[in-house]
Amino acid sequence: MRYILIIGAGKSTGVLVDYLLKKAKKEQFHITLADKSLEAAQALIDGNDNAKAMELDIFNATARTQIIETADIIISMLPARFHIEVARDCVKLGKSMVTASYVSPEMQELDGPAKEKKLVLMNEIGVDPGIDHMSAMQVIDRIQNKGGKMILFESFTGGLVAPEDDNNLWNYKFTWNPRNVVVAGQGGAAKFIQENKYKYIPYHRLFRRTEFLDVDGYGRFEAYANRNSLQYREIYGLDDIATLYRGTMRRVGYSKAWNMFVQLGMTDDSYILDNSENMTYREFVNSFLPYSPTDSVELKMRHELKIDQDDIMWEKLMELDLFNNEKTIGIKDASPAMALQKILEDSWTLQKGEKDMIVMYHKFGYELGGEKKQIDSTMVCLGDGDRQTAMAKTVGLPVAMAALAILNGTIKTYGVQIPISREVYEPILSELQEYGIRFRESETPYLGYNALNR
Amino acid sequence: MRYILIIGAGKSTGVLVDYLLKKAKKEQFHITLADKSLEAAQALIDGNDNAKAMELDIFNATARTQIIETADIIISMLPARFHIEVARDCVKLGKSMVTASYVSPEMQELDGPAKEKKLVLMNEIGVDPGIDHMSAMQVIDRIQNKGGKMILFESFTGGLVAPEDDNNLWNYKFTWNPRNVVVAGQGGAAKFIQENKYKYIPYHRLFRRTEFLDVDGYGRFEAYANRNSLQYREIYGLDDIATLYRGTMRRVGYSKAWNMFVQLGMTDDSYILDNSENMTYREFVNSFLPYSPTDSVELKMRHELKIDQDDIMWEKLMELDLFNNEKTIGIKDASPAMALQKILEDSWTLQKGEKDMIVMYHKFGYELGGEKKQIDSTMVCLGDGDRQTAMAKTVGLPVAMAALAILNGTIKTYGVQIPISREVYEPILSELQEYGIRFRESETPYLGYNALNR
Repeated sequence: MRYILIIGAGKSTGVLVDYLLKKAKKEQFHITLADKSLEAAQALIDGNDNAKAMELDIFNATARTQIIETADIIISMLPARFHIEVARDCVKLGKSMVTASYVSPEMQELDGPAKEKKLVLMNEIGVDPGIDHMSAMQVIDRIQNKGGKMILFESFTGGLVAPEDDNNLWNYKFTWNPRNVVVAGQGGAAKFIQENKYKYIPYHRLFRRTEFLDVDGYGRFEAYANRNSLQYREIYGLDDIATLYRGTMRRVGYSKAWNMFVQLGMTDDSYILDNSENMTYREFVNSFLPYSPTDSVELKMRHELKIDQDDIMWEKLMELDLFNNEKTIGIKDASPAMALQKILEDSWTLQKGEKDMIVMYHKFGYELGGEKKQIDSTMVCLGDGDRQTAMAKTVGLPVAMAALAILNGTIKTYGVQIPISREVYEPILSELQEYGIRFRESETPYLGYNALNR
Repeated sequence: MRYILIIGAGKSTGVLVDYLLKKAKKEQFHITLADKSLEAAQALIDGNDNAKAMELDIFNATARTQIIETADIIISMLPARFHIEVARDCVKLGKSMVTASYVSPEMQELDGPAKEKKLVLMNEIGVDPGIDHMSAMQVIDRIQNKGGKMILFESFTGGLVAPEDDNNLWNYKFTWNPRNVVVAGQGGAAKFIQENKYKYIPYHRLFRRTEFLDVDGYGRFEAYANRNSLQYREIYGLDDIATLYRGTMRRVGYSKAWNMFVQLGMTDDSYILDNSENMTYREFVNSFLPYSPTDSVELKMRHELKIDQDDIMWEKLMELDLFNNEKTIGIKDASPAMALQKILEDSWTLQKGEKDMIVMYHKFGYELGGEKKQIDSTMVCLGDGDRQTAMAKTVGLPVAMAALAILNGTIKTYGVQIPISREVYEPILSELQEYGIRFRESETPYLGYNALNR
């Protein structure tokens, strides 16, 4: 009997547990799900014979070490900043580990020690990062193995609301951590390379430099640039590629409307608003507008944004009840971003039964035998209710599959890894298809820069 | 015989030395001017009997301590970050000290030890900070001593080119550290209070939220908000004031044009441009614009900024030769801000014989005997050639006057000080008038919020 320890009963853990429990008997392993809340862990285990729930304070080093010691492999579903303590224990105790988070510099330092002990520390194996890595590398490897030369790679992912529940003016609801959505794009200019030209976009222009993407059966989306696309040259081995761009997908019109908040300064997370707790939504808005003894907040807002009241942009603001003078922010020492998040949560929280959707779009441009070609690859995953959300499936399933593969010794490249080698991505992408997570490819002559698109 | 030690032969030191040398014989003191360049120090002393030039590496603690020990008072004209080492020596060796820079947290820590040893560590006694503090507190104290209650304080300063040499489309030339001009306003939202309402302006909107200011005989100026005006409530003892705003003055039209650079991301100092050394001005501009295989950089720029080619904004850009594809940035690992500075220095460097100008404008609103009144106070100082620039005069003279007053014991409030007490500002403001640095006041009924102005 082998033991899989899962730490953290988070939003994707349900799918992860369900997947593993279905395999537990045949594959002969037992699951322990540890969380700071015993009830949360129990709820996911639901009395299954092959699993056990337990309470764990991950800051209690003794308890943490004890439980890690009993396991054969550890899956950390904790918030990203907490992985490192678990990872250090794993290396010390000779255990492999899986996370869905970006490799931190501290995690990277464990590469040598992990290799020495023949351990796999697999990271970035959720959806983004995760399925994006795997599905991109599968096509890139195929092109390069045929002798093709990569000239363009563009990759886009979006976490959105499913079409059937897409019923507000923003075509958007929070399907994951709202905070990440409010501060998205902050912390430095977006950087990418296009036709061998370096391009830089400051945060306050990010949401006005979008491009369109059409997905068969799902209509048109838009994308804004992710922070630093350039680092993917090294990660994917595309050192001399002419165009490399990564972006976030939204429904068309979202970015232009979101830019209103950016322009006013409402997404700033670097300072505290005076008296945020008792501030009304209207007062919040007014604090970003010029003073006037006579003009309404509404008129000042329209003037500042240079929009008319029959503009759809204005209707989007009204839908959020932004000018309400009775609803208060209710958060002590809130930054503008925290206050805005509160206002948006009133309108954008996914209701019980509402479904989410993950969309991914890759473009690959390459040259082979003197010809330039392009492959467009798209994936859409819809949620199936509150536990099996698209986000939970696309994060939880690859994590679970990777853990099992490591446990069974079919992934055996040691050290701090991300899922970019065939050994990892081939079986996982193949198995993901059984769960409806499937890429559809179309091949065309190379379009390259498309005047209609950027 | 007393000894005054001046460390740093910087841009304002010439005026400072000239002032002190004129008083040296009568007041019986001797000056030592120490700089890392002996020649720079000698040039300013110019063989005067009452002064001596010496070479000093301020990072050589032994040499620094030795020379400080021989002096009765020390003036540090070093860049702001180097004051603290000198200040610590001064406190250890029992010497008072004067600087024109903002009080750093490390400097503030010397307050207790300085008081214990009965030393004055006078800071912020240049022009801004300096003359602004003194001229503001003189009026505020006068109003409050009459029993008036302050309801508004707005204060603006600008370092500009004198009208006779104001001959470019930007009505601006660098008269001080160009770097500070390029990154002005960065590092957090501007914060102020207006009619008891807190107002926040993000950096990318700062240069579009200007107000106009008219100065008799000098025409119209504009001002954009300085970073955090709120801290002046405490500094000036204006805790419950309804309106408090500090700003930077420019000629009308500068801010709107400068905003083009801000919008494009060219003032960003947080990352390094790829291959900045060999990048042409044109390539620099293009890196902030969308890629196009067909459109010119010029057309993309006009479209991005939404301006026509007969717009004065466009002419301002052309005047800077921004689209030149032969001139290169020539700086290794330059940030966008560093590259922009290089381009601007081609056009905005003050030529030999060209004169600068300092403009200051205070508005004081108050209530006295049931009546609301307003005092507007303005000061314009013009440069007199390359050594006696307006900036050098307005920085060097108050520093020199304060040093002499401390040496003579007429300033005797100990500890880390800024010039906000009558003991300091009365004699200095009075003496500054002899050098043409004079405030002109006008009193009117309270205008408060003026719809034409903000």
